[in-house]
Amino acid sequence: MKVPSSLTLLTEALRHLPGVGPKSAQRMAYHLLQHDRDGAALLGRALTQAVDQIHHCALCNTFTENEICETCLDPERDPSLLCVVETPTDQLMIEQTLTFKGLYFVLMGRLSPLDGIGPKDIQLEKLVSRATDGVVKEVVLATNFTNEGEATAHYISETMKARGLQVSRLARGVPVGGELEYVDAGTIARAMLDRRAT
Amino acid sequence: MKVPSSLTLLTEALRHLPGVGPKSAQRMAYHLLQHDRDGAALLGRALTQAVDQIHHCALCNTFTENEICETCLDPERDPSLLCVVETPTDQLMIEQTLTFKGLYFVLMGRLSPLDGIGPKDIQLEKLVSRATDGVVKEVVLATNFTNEGEATAHYISETMKARGLQVSRLARGVPVGGELEYVDAGTIARAMLDRRAT
Ligand SMILES: [Zn+2]
Ligand SMILES: [Zn+2]
Repeated sequence: MKVPSSLTLLTEALRHLPGVGPKSAQRMAYHLLQHDRDGAALLGRALTQAVDQIHHCALCNTFTENEICETCLDPERDPSLLCVVETPTDQLMIEQTLTFKGLYFVLMGRLSPLDGIGPKDIQLEKLVSRATDGVVKEVVLATNFTNEGEATAHYISETMKARGLQVSRLARGVPVGGELEYVDAGTIARAMLDRRAT
Repeated sequence: MKVPSSLTLLTEALRHLPGVGPKSAQRMAYHLLQHDRDGAALLGRALTQAVDQIHHCALCNTFTENEICETCLDPERDPSLLCVVETPTDQLMIEQTLTFKGLYFVLMGRLSPLDGIGPKDIQLEKLVSRATDGVVKEVVLATNFTNEGEATAHYISETMKARGLQVSRLARGVPVGGELEYVDAGTIARAMLDRRAT
């Protein structure tokens, strides 16, 4: 008994999804082929297109289809303020509070020595050259208030202060141990307004 | 702040995967674009190819890239025996035991009224016409021993017997190597009732 090769390939490819082991990869493959072929075709096209079109913004490192993202190109924003976040979702959460009118840098991660994620993996060189453009005056650290987020903030803070930049951190209105993605906008707004120099 | 449209499309498409909600779809999209673009491209191609090439075997209903699968075409097999299983994986499990040399029918599911899965969804008409080809003498029911698998076996059994076919079911009992202490009472009860002379 032979499993069709394109089914084997699909099952193996599904394991590239985070948190998907051999059993769930097989369940996913069967489900798509049996119950949702249109969805499978759609997902296939979406993956191919996203890989083809999504890049990192040359300035803020977030995902964009252009060389420079819309936020970085927005002339209404204050270029002397640079807010550092872990993910695009965190940036979106802050945007929703309407309390910050500066620009962003998206790390796309956080320092995590235990997982082997060091300064190079979160684009710290890119951040340093972005922050030392001569226009940025204050770096607002808005990494999560988890252990890893705090360590990342501390590391960036030291790096930036060594280069003469003013550094601030979201106030501890955000619950200790909390992740921005799950905090209500009002709390994030308070924390932004109360940000303190570090 | 605008999320790139191909990223939005990807996140939405990932929700076609079973058990993937909005949060994990987003986490998957970020992970693929940030850490595993080759994997994403591979998965995209695998999905497109599988949807294009995988069909149901005209005889046994399993996934195949051909009109009739290799198992059904195997001249060494006994065409008077037809084993009914829920999934290709179940078929593989039985094949590995080397105890069955007949042919198969793969339901690609099970009756599950609570989930709205009725006889049409598990290709019972196809099974009936397959089993009544004049060559099949015995239908071996190897659906799972869950409530739904048992109900499916019962339904198929009645359908087949009404057409004059001999029907059997895998024996229930204590697993080989099983210790009574760790076997549930229902299984022991069944094994007691089905006990055989030695
Ligand atoms: Zn940007
Ligand atoms: Zn077949």
